[in-house]
Amino acid sequence: MSIADIGEFGLIARVVARLENGPKVLLGPGDDGAVVAAPDRRVVASTDVLVEGRHFRRDWCTALDIGHRAAAANLADIAAMGAEPTALLVAFCAPADLAAEWAEDLASGLSAEAALVGASVVGGDMSSSPTLTIAVTALGDLGGRPPVVRGGAQPGDILALAGRTGHAAAGYTILSRGFRTPKALVEAYRRPEVPYAAGPLAAQHGATSMIDISDGLLQDVGHIAAASLVAIDVRTDAFTVPGQMRDAATALGLDPFQWLLAGGEDHALAATFPAGVPLPEGWQEIGRVFDGAGVTVDRKPWSGAPGWDHFR
Amino acid sequence: MSIADIGEFGLIARVVARLENGPKVLLGPGDDGAVVAAPDRRVVASTDVLVEGRHFRRDWCTALDIGHRAAAANLADIAAMGAEPTALLVAFCAPADLAAEWAEDLASGLSAEAALVGASVVGGDMSSSPTLTIAVTALGDLGGRPPVVRGGAQPGDILALAGRTGHAAAGYTILSRGFRTPKALVEAYRRPEVPYAAGPLAAQHGATSMIDISDGLLQDVGHIAAASLVAIDVRTDAFTVPGQMRDAATALGLDPFQWLLAGGEDHALAATFPAGVPLPEGWQEIGRVFDGAGVTVDRKPWSGAPGWDHFR
Repeated sequence: MSIADIGEFGLIARVVARLENGPKVLLGPGDDGAVVAAPDRRVVASTDVLVEGRHFRRDWCTALDIGHRAAAANLADIAAMGAEPTALLVAFCAPADLAAEWAEDLASGLSAEAALVGASVVGGDMSSSPTLTIAVTALGDLGGRPPVVRGGAQPGDILALAGRTGHAAAGYTILSRGFRTPKALVEAYRRPEVPYAAGPLAAQHGATSMIDISDGLLQDVGHIAAASLVAIDVRTDAFTVPGQMRDAATALGLDPFQWLLAGGEDHALAATFPAGVPLPEGWQEIGRVFDGAGVTVDRKPWSGAPGWDHFR
Repeated sequence: MSIADIGEFGLIARVVARLENGPKVLLGPGDDGAVVAAPDRRVVASTDVLVEGRHFRRDWCTALDIGHRAAAANLADIAAMGAEPTALLVAFCAPADLAAEWAEDLASGLSAEAALVGASVVGGDMSSSPTLTIAVTALGDLGGRPPVVRGGAQPGDILALAGRTGHAAAGYTILSRGFRTPKALVEAYRRPEVPYAAGPLAAQHGATSMIDISDGLLQDVGHIAAASLVAIDVRTDAFTVPGQMRDAATALGLDPFQWLLAGGEDHALAATFPAGVPLPEGWQEIGRVFDGAGVTVDRKPWSGAPGWDHFR
């Protein structure tokens, strides 16, 4: 049954039936707006959009997977501010001949990923469109802490990483070459494993800056360097190339460090901490902050692409 | 110069330069998330999406107009909860060959409409897409009041309207028939005049239910009737057909009440109030709430379409 068959309001009813309201939801879907708790009198908000063919392909991922990915991309931005996600709102544009079940499964994926951090899908909008598009806004709660911004890194700080990089990019490359294995890498692309708790934990432990790695470690760390007016060096010896990633890179004739250092969409978090502060659980040192500008790898310029530009 | 020429980050810099941060913005664009004041420990949030060809046409409206309309559609939802809008987030998808200036002008329109109510564009995301798409999320502050939901209308209540209906629909019909005048109606389509202040005012004066009329008065009042388990009757003698609208309808062989009662996109507000309560400024009585179900016009079924379905 297509979306056109059941109509906008029929689809909304089916989608809302897939959602669960968590404890932060004071008024859920179904009205002109939702009402969400903002206990510390501030709300963190972030928006990310996924476009078919650009951010996902229906032949590579199920609707459930894409729901998980769309939610993860947004929830990770909230975590990267040091906040706890509370709610998602979703604008969904789709061709009218799309199966209604696809939209319902997408909602299930969004709701399930949000539930991992106690957040809920509280609202949204739908429209027909020739291009399947999913725009998600995430809200979050800072728990009384200042937000951890990109501009606070200081020379002498440690650069640290929570979560993994390169896995989603390797999975993407594998799928784009027509392969379906290794399964662990393909699954990493389909559903990122985001270290959500590491964000607020970093804030509690005095992180001086933080960012969600959505476009590639070097490019995103470059945003910290630019905003903080510092130079950042990433050490390759801090990374272990997983065996399956090394094998896949060898088979495809690629350098696995291009995935690890410049691949996006795992939604790892990068943060800087004052030197000498013990890193919180889940964080490992991968570099240092220096006087200067730009990002280097083992103190040398990186010759590959640093990440992804959504218009090029 | 196209978006592709200047790239994602170049475009973000240009767009952000068009924005102004209002007093509710604690951290504006440029980080993983924005931080917005939520003084009463709750935040109202709503999302609306506009798709080219479906919600707007570039040959009918300037980018500035479309920015105003996209913001208005969302800000009106916040007002319809009885809240004051504080912030907008915008997901923008466009073909890479779109002129960068178009995107900049869109940002100016969004920012200017938000500024009418003291709100600001605080964040967003961009992606290339074959379909120009603008998804906006609005946040708002309830000022300590309960939200005014759709489900609170009681038999005996007055149905009241703030703002105008039918103007945008008339302008749309005029444009779609290839005309450009009357200018007042065409302009009403291009830039709705939303009675933002009437929303919080209605909440303060005890409105029992409220909705933003985005799809058509009868259809949207029908949502109040359905959520409140009541019947609502709209009286046509409460409406004055403006001279230009009557003339345009006559020239096109149409019934102007189809515009007034079933045309969307003016973003008027409809609300119910207990009988005997003086209506606040800007509100006028247009009907009554009864026991029963459904919406009638002059106590009879309406034979035309009640409004708009985005998938049909």
